Amino acid sequence: MTRRVDSGRLWADLMALGAITEPDRPFTRRAFSPLFDQGRAWLTERMRATDLVTRVDAGGNLLGRRRGAHPSWPAIVVGSHSDSVPSGGRFDGMAGVIAGIGIARALLEHRIELRHPLEIIDFLAEEPNEFGLSCIGSRALSGCLTAEQLSLRSPTGETLAAAVGRVGGDPAQLPMAPRRDIRAAFELHIEQGPVLEREGLDIGVVTAIVGITRLEIEFQGSAGHAGTTPMQGRRDPLIAAARLVGWVRETALELASTGRGHFVATVGIIEALPGGSNVIARSARIVIDARSEDRHLMEEFRARLDAESRSAAQAANVGRSRFACLSDTLPAGCDARLQAVLSESAQRLGLRARSLASGAGHDMAFISQVAPAAMAFIPCKDGRSHTPEEWATAEALTAGAEVLLEAILQVDRTTASP
Amino acid sequence: MTRRVDSGRLWADLMALGAITEPDRPFTRRAFSPLFDQGRAWLTERMRATDLVTRVDAGGNLLGRRRGAHPSWPAIVVGSHSDSVPSGGRFDGMAGVIAGIGIARALLEHRIELRHPLEIIDFLAEEPNEFGLSCIGSRALSGCLTAEQLSLRSPTGETLAAAVGRVGGDPAQLPMAPRRDIRAAFELHIEQGPVLEREGLDIGVVTAIVGITRLEIEFQGSAGHAGTTPMQGRRDPLIAAARLVGWVRETALELASTGRGHFVATVGIIEALPGGSNVIARSARIVIDARSEDRHLMEEFRARLDAESRSAAQAANVGRSRFACLSDTLPAGCDARLQAVLSESAQRLGLRARSLASGAGHDMAFISQVAPAAMAFIPCKDGRSHTPEEWATAEALTAGAEVLLEAILQVDRTTASP
Repeated sequence: MTRRVDSGRLWADLMALGAITEPDRPFTRRAFSPLFDQGRAWLTERMRATDLVTRVDAGGNLLGRRRGAHPSWPAIVVGSHSDSVPSGGRFDGMAGVIAGIGIARALLEHRIELRHPLEIIDFLAEEPNEFGLSCIGSRALSGCLTAEQLSLRSPTGETLAAAVGRVGGDPAQLPMAPRRDIRAAFELHIEQGPVLEREGLDIGVVTAIVGITRLEIEFQGSAGHAGTTPMQGRRDPLIAAARLVGWVRETALELASTGRGHFVATVGIIEALPGGSNVIARSARIVIDARSEDRHLMEEFRARLDAESRSAAQAANVGRSRFACLSDTLPAGCDARLQAVLSESAQRLGLRARSLASGAGHDMAFISQVAPAAMAFIPCKDGRSHTPEEWATAEALTAGAEVLLEAILQVDRTTASP
Repeated sequence: MTRRVDSGRLWADLMALGAITEPDRPFTRRAFSPLFDQGRAWLTERMRATDLVTRVDAGGNLLGRRRGAHPSWPAIVVGSHSDSVPSGGRFDGMAGVIAGIGIARALLEHRIELRHPLEIIDFLAEEPNEFGLSCIGSRALSGCLTAEQLSLRSPTGETLAAAVGRVGGDPAQLPMAPRRDIRAAFELHIEQGPVLEREGLDIGVVTAIVGITRLEIEFQGSAGHAGTTPMQGRRDPLIAAARLVGWVRETALELASTGRGHFVATVGIIEALPGGSNVIARSARIVIDARSEDRHLMEEFRARLDAESRSAAQAANVGRSRFACLSDTLPAGCDARLQAVLSESAQRLGLRARSLASGAGHDMAFISQVAPAAMAFIPCKDGRSHTPEEWATAEALTAGAEVLLEAILQVDRTTASP
């Protein structure tokens, strides 16, 4: 099987983009920062060097377009994001954008003409940022960015609309009409989990991007002196909160084993107030992050958590003062045909692949609203992400880009004219 | 039964002392602060007005002494403390010092001469303070204040020895030799718990002051992405920490019901790090405050906690990275004869009394090292303490002072010459 993607230049590009970072806090290139603009300028230059025609759309996405034999046909898209979390890595997002440029370079250098136009996209602000909203560019492009979200303000008082304008978007055209001219969209991403590495696989074909539900539960009891308040008659809210921590794990294990796909739930935040060693807590709070590719499973979890937290409050003789949904997104299924195309492409290239769900959110969750969308994962070291130690090999990255290129060629070949 | 203590003046004195507070943070008069000196100056004046001869001993305690018919006999002591916690109340400590002055006034005005000298003591710095050491004055007086403790430094760099000197103590005489000239020591204090109020009683005769053991347990696991790390194979340290929270409560309930006296245990501090909603914790920490009047019960609790925390770590596949004793004090029994004297005194005065342990630490725990010591509790509203809402009635306070006066008269009458 011919290999067309230049691994050395792919890797050099990725490292060069990673070097555009806050020097004392590698690797940091937050959306809307001057460093982000610097990264975008570098990406624009790289896109142009591979004969892509660049522009920034109304939603602040950077696009590099290659003309197809049928220029008016819907485009095949390869996209991810170039912004990072604070002290993040050099792969999450960037690997997908750089792979897109590597694919465009392969097409250019191997003089392959596609029937469809090809668009490499750097989606704006996928990571959490100062506006408290992720996936801003992919929301905009898919018509999911609302007027209310556009008036969100950063701590400095700037509106999101103004910030999108500052990176080259067009607030006057926002909210954007959803794009309907996309034939297929692909994203390459590191797995950010341990499965592929553990199983010695090259490629993960993503079945769905999980829905994420964040719930906050707070219990109110009676603060008291830890020495003088007898055990009987205490109203200690931490007893109820701590009971839920174990319950969340047990229930998630149970739901994950039902065969209804990826399910995880985590308590990463717990707080007892006032938080003194000699004071019985007055209130206790936990935040639960639950993720499922099956909405019914999530609804079942939420209903059971509701009942369990009431029962925990009753047993501890405290009040459940808060049971709030902080955020809630639906699972997004990847396109079945594109999943098959990715699997076949991996097989043709002699790569070992499996299907798996994405436990993290991605731009493709929004793009799937307007076009067939799919994702390929590559293994990353120890499953780590959002840390400077985030790592994938040049071989893994190149393999992922080859799979995408192969899939693009197949879609381009086998899709009837619109 | 004759009532001798002037309730109106007792209450007026207590309110006047309480008024010496940081104006925007009532009721605050922290040890070693200028307001503390101001409170001491006011107390000195009150002591002198009741014919007490005042001095400050080497350990910084303020003493007001009334001569006895046998001036060389050991003294009968009534003492507590005038310092407060930040945003504390007007009763914790102060009630006991003011009651001592009220008793001295009653003796003066009713022309009662004791055979023993009487000493009213304001022990220095009973509450936690900037040196991280409580009961400084009673430690000094009982020979328990060590040279190491005297070289503790406040955040400003002052040594404890220098601070004791600043309030009138004598660092050159520190550590003090323990005083051996005390016949009996009494302390009146608000209960700081709900028992007397709930049972409609006037007086609690303290059986023992609990020993306090503070333990810190930390578990280390693997931080991970809350979405991409499957439930199986997680190493979440919060699972182990949360399990202990419930276990501590269940075990304390069990030990409290064994009939071996007061036992309580509390988790008031819990922490998961890094503490993000979408991150599986890397480490989790709890602090346990356990209190018992029976040292064997405490040792049993500690051994079982050790075993349970190892087992919780194993079950969660995490490491128990810390099992540390932050502090550990032994229980201090109150003198059996003085307990009987207090009970009889209450009965003679027609007051309803019961025995109970003190779940909080007190100066008498140290004084009991060098002399027979005992405490009487009075009920306080809703059991609350260390808050501006801390409250006891003038009737309750007066009843407590009357009981102490009655007990002093009995000890003075019935004790043979030394």
